[in-house]
Amino acid sequence: MVLERIKSPADVKILSREELDVLARELRTTIINTVSKTGGHLAPNLGVVELSIALHCTYETPKDKIVWDVGAQAYPHKLLTGRLDRFDTIRQFKGLSGFPNVKESEHDHFGTGHSSTSIGIALGMAAARDLNQDDYACIAVIGDGGMTGGVAFEGLNHAGHLGTNLLVILNDNAMSISPNLGGLYSHLNRITSGQFYNYVRKETTKAVSKIPAIGELAEKGILRIEELSKGLITPGLLFEELGFRYFGPLDGHDLDLLLHTFENVKQLKGPILMHVITEKGRGYNPAVIDPTSFHGAKPFDVKTGAFKSGKAGPPTFTKVFANTACAMAEKDKRVVAVTAAMREGTGLVEFAGRYPDRFFDVAIAEQHALELASGLATQGIRPIAAIYSTFLQRAFDQLYHDVCIHNLPVLLCLDRGGIVGADGATHQGLYDLSYLRCLPNMVVSAAADERDLVRLMWTALAHDGPFAVRYPRENCQAEPDSYEGEPFRIGEGTVVRSGERVAILAIGTMVYRALRAAEELDKFGIDPTIVNMRFVKPMDLELLKKIAASHHYLVTIEDNTIEGGFGSAVAQRLTELEIPPQPLLNIGVPDKIIEHGSRDEIFEMLGMSPKQIAERIERFVKSKVLV
Amino acid sequence: MVLERIKSPADVKILSREELDVLARELRTTIINTVSKTGGHLAPNLGVVELSIALHCTYETPKDKIVWDVGAQAYPHKLLTGRLDRFDTIRQFKGLSGFPNVKESEHDHFGTGHSSTSIGIALGMAAARDLNQDDYACIAVIGDGGMTGGVAFEGLNHAGHLGTNLLVILNDNAMSISPNLGGLYSHLNRITSGQFYNYVRKETTKAVSKIPAIGELAEKGILRIEELSKGLITPGLLFEELGFRYFGPLDGHDLDLLLHTFENVKQLKGPILMHVITEKGRGYNPAVIDPTSFHGAKPFDVKTGAFKSGKAGPPTFTKVFANTACAMAEKDKRVVAVTAAMREGTGLVEFAGRYPDRFFDVAIAEQHALELASGLATQGIRPIAAIYSTFLQRAFDQLYHDVCIHNLPVLLCLDRGGIVGADGATHQGLYDLSYLRCLPNMVVSAAADERDLVRLMWTALAHDGPFAVRYPRENCQAEPDSYEGEPFRIGEGTVVRSGERVAILAIGTMVYRALRAAEELDKFGIDPTIVNMRFVKPMDLELLKKIAASHHYLVTIEDNTIEGGFGSAVAQRLTELEIPPQPLLNIGVPDKIIEHGSRDEIFEMLGMSPKQIAERIERFVKSKVLV
Repeated sequence: MVLERIKSPADVKILSREELDVLARELRTTIINTVSKTGGHLAPNLGVVELSIALHCTYETPKDKIVWDVGAQAYPHKLLTGRLDRFDTIRQFKGLSGFPNVKESEHDHFGTGHSSTSIGIALGMAAARDLNQDDYACIAVIGDGGMTGGVAFEGLNHAGHLGTNLLVILNDNAMSISPNLGGLYSHLNRITSGQFYNYVRKETTKAVSKIPAIGELAEKGILRIEELSKGLITPGLLFEELGFRYFGPLDGHDLDLLLHTFENVKQLKGPILMHVITEKGRGYNPAVIDPTSFHGAKPFDVKTGAFKSGKAGPPTFTKVFANTACAMAEKDKRVVAVTAAMREGTGLVEFAGRYPDRFFDVAIAEQHALELASGLATQGIRPIAAIYSTFLQRAFDQLYHDVCIHNLPVLLCLDRGGIVGADGATHQGLYDLSYLRCLPNMVVSAAADERDLVRLMWTALAHDGPFAVRYPRENCQAEPDSYEGEPFRIGEGTVVRSGERVAILAIGTMVYRALRAAEELDKFGIDPTIVNMRFVKPMDLELLKKIAASHHYLVTIEDNTIEGGFGSAVAQRLTELEIPPQPLLNIGVPDKIIEHGSRDEIFEMLGMSPKQIAERIERFVKSKVLV
Repeated sequence: MVLERIKSPADVKILSREELDVLARELRTTIINTVSKTGGHLAPNLGVVELSIALHCTYETPKDKIVWDVGAQAYPHKLLTGRLDRFDTIRQFKGLSGFPNVKESEHDHFGTGHSSTSIGIALGMAAARDLNQDDYACIAVIGDGGMTGGVAFEGLNHAGHLGTNLLVILNDNAMSISPNLGGLYSHLNRITSGQFYNYVRKETTKAVSKIPAIGELAEKGILRIEELSKGLITPGLLFEELGFRYFGPLDGHDLDLLLHTFENVKQLKGPILMHVITEKGRGYNPAVIDPTSFHGAKPFDVKTGAFKSGKAGPPTFTKVFANTACAMAEKDKRVVAVTAAMREGTGLVEFAGRYPDRFFDVAIAEQHALELASGLATQGIRPIAAIYSTFLQRAFDQLYHDVCIHNLPVLLCLDRGGIVGADGATHQGLYDLSYLRCLPNMVVSAAADERDLVRLMWTALAHDGPFAVRYPRENCQAEPDSYEGEPFRIGEGTVVRSGERVAILAIGTMVYRALRAAEELDKFGIDPTIVNMRFVKPMDLELLKKIAASHHYLVTIEDNTIEGGFGSAVAQRLTELEIPPQPLLNIGVPDKIIEHGSRDEIFEMLGMSPKQIAERIERFVKSKVLV
């Protein structure tokens, strides 16, 4: 096996041309076989096999820097940089990350996970290189989907200005996760469907300037020959206008072409955009046919491509959200849904099918998603913005400046709240309760179960202002009996277990973790009251006061950073109540970067298994002996 | 006076053509005279006088919607929509806002203040119009500076996809606040310097297709006539490629041309980009000559254009930051500065002059500013990112995903922290302590005075991780004796006044407010200890424990939202200490949108004058009688 001989990129460079083809096949087989067992990103990785080989044949990492945008397509790169032996641990607890990770390899120059960051990062590295009077290549590999994110455009604009050596490889497979859209996509589509050849450019300029009529127009200043050749022959005019030299489109599976082009491009100065056309899922037919399902794939049968069915059980929160959104749209014509290239992930496929005119996929553009929602909301529309907790971070300013200042009724449905699981650090939904709570007019809630989620969404519809509901990547307790629900009073908490002395105030699905902890606490002779607080802001102050007055020890539990989140809000509200101060224990995610692993593994690591929670509460009660 | 007859846009429409010219002159005089007294945005408003008149002659607000990007150029619009009588109150406490404000007029369709939001907002309004089967125009007026912000590009991209009726007016004055830069600017510059005429387009297509040689190329598919006419004759190819129909460039001071073009454009369907060239400061020579100083102008003498000198006094925090940044760059070659189109505002003019290669102005692109800084920091460079507190909100995701996950030594210098003053709600720096505190690896500090700011910046340089220092738009206590300073221990707090029973823990310049409150407290027989905590995270736990153990009552003071900020952090840390719980009073900015006014007026309104603080502490001490 050729791949087994690859301990570093140096081993790739010495392979014969025939061996490189073998290597490409082996990379595909390895990735398909591994992901079929572990799950993970399949289609995007199969698309960049030749591109990764060509990069490592041409450039010298770690000296040369490669920044993989989003990073979900770095599996071939991982295999080419000596990580075959650990590849079967990918996305597992303490195993390889599913994304580039600087702690994992000196060949990973930057950890990525969110989209559209690579151009700016690579440009920063290039600017540092120039300052340090050093000499190496800085390369950003970005998908056509990633190119729709505003920060990518900001990076292109600045790179065009600086003019330093930078290679941007546009990996164009005409889709991000869902099929792409937008003006940019149309532009790229015109390029790839046309019959353009880069080398024709020069020849045509020559030919055309000899045409008398054209020469005449040129003399009059109406026609500019230079623009003519650009506009007609260079398909990447949009990029050229921003200051890049454009090469492409190139067949991203033609290894000879890639190797040849990289060798040439390597000699050139200034910002260069290389436009490479690849096929998602290349080499594995089921993934070519259904690249969306095989983007982030569940385990599957390699032979048939059939996904292994998970254990039957209650629906996921995503599914309950999706059905509720449809039920709301059915009842209320004002309801629309907005997603940022996450139709499948957020569960909006059915909504999009049933209400195509009321479904807005804005491409990978969370900032614009909230601008659009704000504009819609000013005119009486009720937008549901379905955005992963971690991706909403990108629209934080829009949330304050456009949604909250105007107190607009935008419903934020934040999937992947809390510990995200296998996607790890870049995708953790651990900050939302904190960053939402500090914004005026914001109602901040978390669903404990399916019934909560349904009712919270209907609560939002009845409320005239910004409203966030967060829920984890997890199954609910059961199928809800209805996707319609009575609104809660804003702030309403519920006592779910009555005990004495100790009260556990829980938010979101931590309610069920607290209930399991209560079983353990029984062993210590502790019989806690458990409250589903449901809202971080505003908080049920009457209930809080009652609970505080009737219990000696208060405990909060949240799957959010401990800094400024739910427990912090409880601590603060308690100081405002007219009651004597009393002992409080905040249980939550510690203030550090949390890596990947299953939710249960991570909770265990953080001391938040039901058993560990019980032990912590017992220690707390013991240590705070009341006078 | 014509202007006095304008109570609503309907009164503009009935004016004769000659009266419109008079109106334009009167608008300029009124704006110049008022701003010369109140201070405010001058140059951008003088640039859009004719554009504003033409818009209100053609369109019917409030039915038609106009979204003014950034909003600093809405003074003529305010005067044309019946606000002359209150115009002299602009930017004053309880007076007119310096930006569009939906509470102020039905003709203000959206409050703006941050850049690049208008396209998305207007598109949202347009999408709502279509859903509601309504019929009105949706217009975004955006500067060429605003166009560099990524979210504007996201909006263009989505508008090109939706294809609905939307008018984007690109108000191109070749500068945002500082002169613009970037690839986009070069593109616009090529347009405006060229001799292009829109109407030639059609004619040339006809003419060119008759040329035999061209026809031949076209038949072979090498040349596409349609692209030819576009690429040659339409200068706005970049926008056309994104799905917009482009008109321009137009002289934005030629009222006849504007009126004529609007009448035509009004009839057209789909997304339209109208490119208007204006001159900042038009009609007032001092502002034309120095549009940067007259962007946000201090009061000035109308005759001479000389700015009225403020009272002599200690330097501003901005100035102390600027000098310290230069001192750091002088001593340490790794230090560079990054700004997002705010060279003047952040104080980096001298740095840019002295270290041109180490100064990066990335255009209005805060997200990219942090990407660039991250990339730089990976290669041993020490970037200082100078960004207003409110604008850093736009890079919140980059802060987590790129800076904090990688624990990169990026120094964030956050000017305009706390109550911002006359700029009001959109510009408040009231959320930074909260949104920074929840991010792992982040050191969060605030400077109480010039000495603190100098030392904190040097502390950051000695620290290997992300570090934020915030300071207000205010004068320091004195000129610092040096712009070099010994690093603090990370977290280090300082007792600045020793008292008993009551301890006031203050952050940033609230230390001095607390000291003044202490004088008032003397009347109540209260002799407080006052601590400059300096760091929100990590906090000086030893000091906190000592203070808590030796005082009965604890008070925190911050000019940040009370939700999740400094006081909240103190409340949380206290629960973690091995000491009995004790009474705590958090004084800070309440959880609501805070409008404009002088800093002292706003503090007074919020119950945060030294006298009010003293009274609150006295009530607190009385109410919490210890057992």
